[in-house]
Amino acid sequence: MLVLNPSFIVTMDRECRIIKDGFIGIEEGKIVYVSKEKPQEYEEIIRLPKRVLLPGFINTHTHVAMTILRGLKDDVNLQRWLMEYILPVEKLLKPKDVYYGALYGIAEMIKSGTTTFMDMYYHEIEVAKAAADAKIRSVLTYGLADVFFNTLPEEEFKKAEKFKDDLSALVSSRGLDDFLFFAYGPHSPYGCTKELLQIVREAADRDNFRIHIHLSETKSEVENSVRTSNMTPIEYLESVGFLKSDVMAAHVVWPTDGDIEILKHRGVHVLHNPTSNLKLASGVAPVPKFLEKGINVALATDGPASNNRLDMWKEISLAALIHKGISRDPEVISARTALQMATINGAYALGLERKIGSLEVGKYADFVVVNLERALESVPFHDVYSMIVYALDSRYIDSVWINGELMYSQENVLKTIDVQKLREIVNDIRIRLTQEAGIKTPSEV
Amino acid sequence: MLVLNPSFIVTMDRECRIIKDGFIGIEEGKIVYVSKEKPQEYEEIIRLPKRVLLPGFINTHTHVAMTILRGLKDDVNLQRWLMEYILPVEKLLKPKDVYYGALYGIAEMIKSGTTTFMDMYYHEIEVAKAAADAKIRSVLTYGLADVFFNTLPEEEFKKAEKFKDDLSALVSSRGLDDFLFFAYGPHSPYGCTKELLQIVREAADRDNFRIHIHLSETKSEVENSVRTSNMTPIEYLESVGFLKSDVMAAHVVWPTDGDIEILKHRGVHVLHNPTSNLKLASGVAPVPKFLEKGINVALATDGPASNNRLDMWKEISLAALIHKGISRDPEVISARTALQMATINGAYALGLERKIGSLEVGKYADFVVVNLERALESVPFHDVYSMIVYALDSRYIDSVWINGELMYSQENVLKTIDVQKLREIVNDIRIRLTQEAGIKTPSEV
Repeated sequence: MLVLNPSFIVTMDRECRIIKDGFIGIEEGKIVYVSKEKPQEYEEIIRLPKRVLLPGFINTHTHVAMTILRGLKDDVNLQRWLMEYILPVEKLLKPKDVYYGALYGIAEMIKSGTTTFMDMYYHEIEVAKAAADAKIRSVLTYGLADVFFNTLPEEEFKKAEKFKDDLSALVSSRGLDDFLFFAYGPHSPYGCTKELLQIVREAADRDNFRIHIHLSETKSEVENSVRTSNMTPIEYLESVGFLKSDVMAAHVVWPTDGDIEILKHRGVHVLHNPTSNLKLASGVAPVPKFLEKGINVALATDGPASNNRLDMWKEISLAALIHKGISRDPEVISARTALQMATINGAYALGLERKIGSLEVGKYADFVVVNLERALESVPFHDVYSMIVYALDSRYIDSVWINGELMYSQENVLKTIDVQKLREIVNDIRIRLTQEAGIKTPSEV
Repeated sequence: MLVLNPSFIVTMDRECRIIKDGFIGIEEGKIVYVSKEKPQEYEEIIRLPKRVLLPGFINTHTHVAMTILRGLKDDVNLQRWLMEYILPVEKLLKPKDVYYGALYGIAEMIKSGTTTFMDMYYHEIEVAKAAADAKIRSVLTYGLADVFFNTLPEEEFKKAEKFKDDLSALVSSRGLDDFLFFAYGPHSPYGCTKELLQIVREAADRDNFRIHIHLSETKSEVENSVRTSNMTPIEYLESVGFLKSDVMAAHVVWPTDGDIEILKHRGVHVLHNPTSNLKLASGVAPVPKFLEKGINVALATDGPASNNRLDMWKEISLAALIHKGISRDPEVISARTALQMATINGAYALGLERKIGSLEVGKYADFVVVNLERALESVPFHDVYSMIVYALDSRYIDSVWINGELMYSQENVLKTIDVQKLREIVNDIRIRLTQEAGIKTPSEV
């Protein structure tokens, strides 16, 4: 057993214990010991003075390969952004582009403390390969949208089935059962026909996989839904029997009070993307209301084209700030709650609460070491949660561990990814894509 | 002439020119050359490939010595925060505490790219000494509040007069005419009597110094004002002849449409503090409306007890995000506008637009060098403003220059401040203060 002995272990367990000068033991990728007391037997103790250990962050909603499209266009309305910039370029993406874009985004996530992410994209097997190569934990969902692609529901669903098989083969061949997880990814109520949603629902019931969907992201989505079906998107999904406690709903910026009751009643998990919702001018999700009702809320970055980062620490800080300002209640979403949303709540959302999300015996050894000495902002020190959420950020991460392995260390080295080479590849891809799409970006004008 | 040759010079001049692979020449603390062309004569050219040069940030509103109170208590309502925590501890602050707290905060500001700040506090001469020792540019204001301190207006005003004299002596003895600037600092319409406000107004008219004031920060401030005077705080200041174009008003979260007309008409400058306004649950200032009317809006961090950082880059990013989400318009406050608010608009607010705020010949050589190679998020690269505001942050600052001198370099060395020693001093102060005040902070419970 390898033992770490930091100044603070922020467990994020049920009691949210913070263990001062405690000991955490790791063996075969798992946490096997957590205590204030020094263990009797051990191989090695690594002392970590002025260091804080946190559970690795869980980024519950992204489209990670979109690193390639980051900054392509910002500060325009969603329609122009999508139609004139994102879609024309996305059409030109080759599977290998998705692989490299995903690997690059994964490098960013690991560096900033994310140890598990959930993704939705197409060519999703390439994202899975990148996650496998990087050895980061992930839940992978193939984005299905028969309305967008003008396909038949059964035909569209086959993409998910094929992806499930391909992923299963990848997991077997690489021995990655503990790392890569499958879920269904119907894009949204407006991107999918009722038939497709029902096929997904039946399949999820049958084989016990979860469902990842965009839901009530924009006001116009809700207005369109009410116009065409006389129901909100949430009422509509409820009416077709879609909503259960295996549903992971991204955004949920515009629920009615009735919608919130439905989400609560069905045990739906909400994936909150504060930066993306602001940047795309969608609005601010009523997270305090969700929490008050006991709805599980996890955090996420959304894709790097609408953020434009993949840094969960930024989302934690923003989540703790913005709802105070909007609700005009400074007691809403405490620093601790924001950190829960990025760790244990994320684990619950993904159905992985027995495996990740807190530093407890039996869980995977996925954690982040924060160096207080490097931060001016760690002085004066009054409270661990406040310091982490309001004063520090991911720059002070010394190391990131996944499955008990050191994946990133302060010397700027990622164990599984050659970032320098990757930078050039990603840059070449963006040059090829913007040329093919005939898009002049501002720096070239 | 020392010449720097970075990949991009982001001038923030009137045309917002970005000069690719350009040259900027420095002599005797000033910018003497800015061009795409290599100068004919020079002492030395420092090539800065993959580096971006930005004007130093201008933090227009802070109480920098409050680093000492950072994290003392968060996530409680303003009344409890102020009455049970901040005020009891502030009463115990000695002049030397203010000096060290200010110096520590100045270290944070320089590291994160701020080259000029405006402060309001008491024992303000200690803040001035810290700024003088650090050689950062600053506008210093002694917080006057005869209502809070139950003093006579004339008596209270003497604090400002004394501070002005002390500052003037400090400036003379240290030769810091270009660094330290005086302004008046009546705390707020509710913290000052009408008499005090009028004394300040007359003095400002007479001696041509500017006025720094908190204004319409919270909804209850406005409601109280309407209840007692039947006027909003802005209408009230207008009624006593206080508002002119030398007034720098911090916050302005709750102006009426009529108030905005008054601010516009009088040329008042607004100092926007997005993080603080969210964290203290004050709300979100209607910045898009201000800009639409042509009111000058600058950016600020507010004090480190209500932020809890002094990092202007964070405010730039937040300012560009939050107003999009609130107004549901993604075209509001572009990345470029947010950067203007932190640079040239700040210079206009402080009345220093001929000296700082942009990279132009004749201005002080205050600037920041950003290293794109260290940032994963700088790839792919499409647009300089978008990259800076949405994808990067202050961790990628390689160096900070004030008055043509290298004040901070990537090797983590601050030229004028011994941070290691200062950390211990600040920590000792907080131990003494919390013990004296009998406050148990969470980490000790």
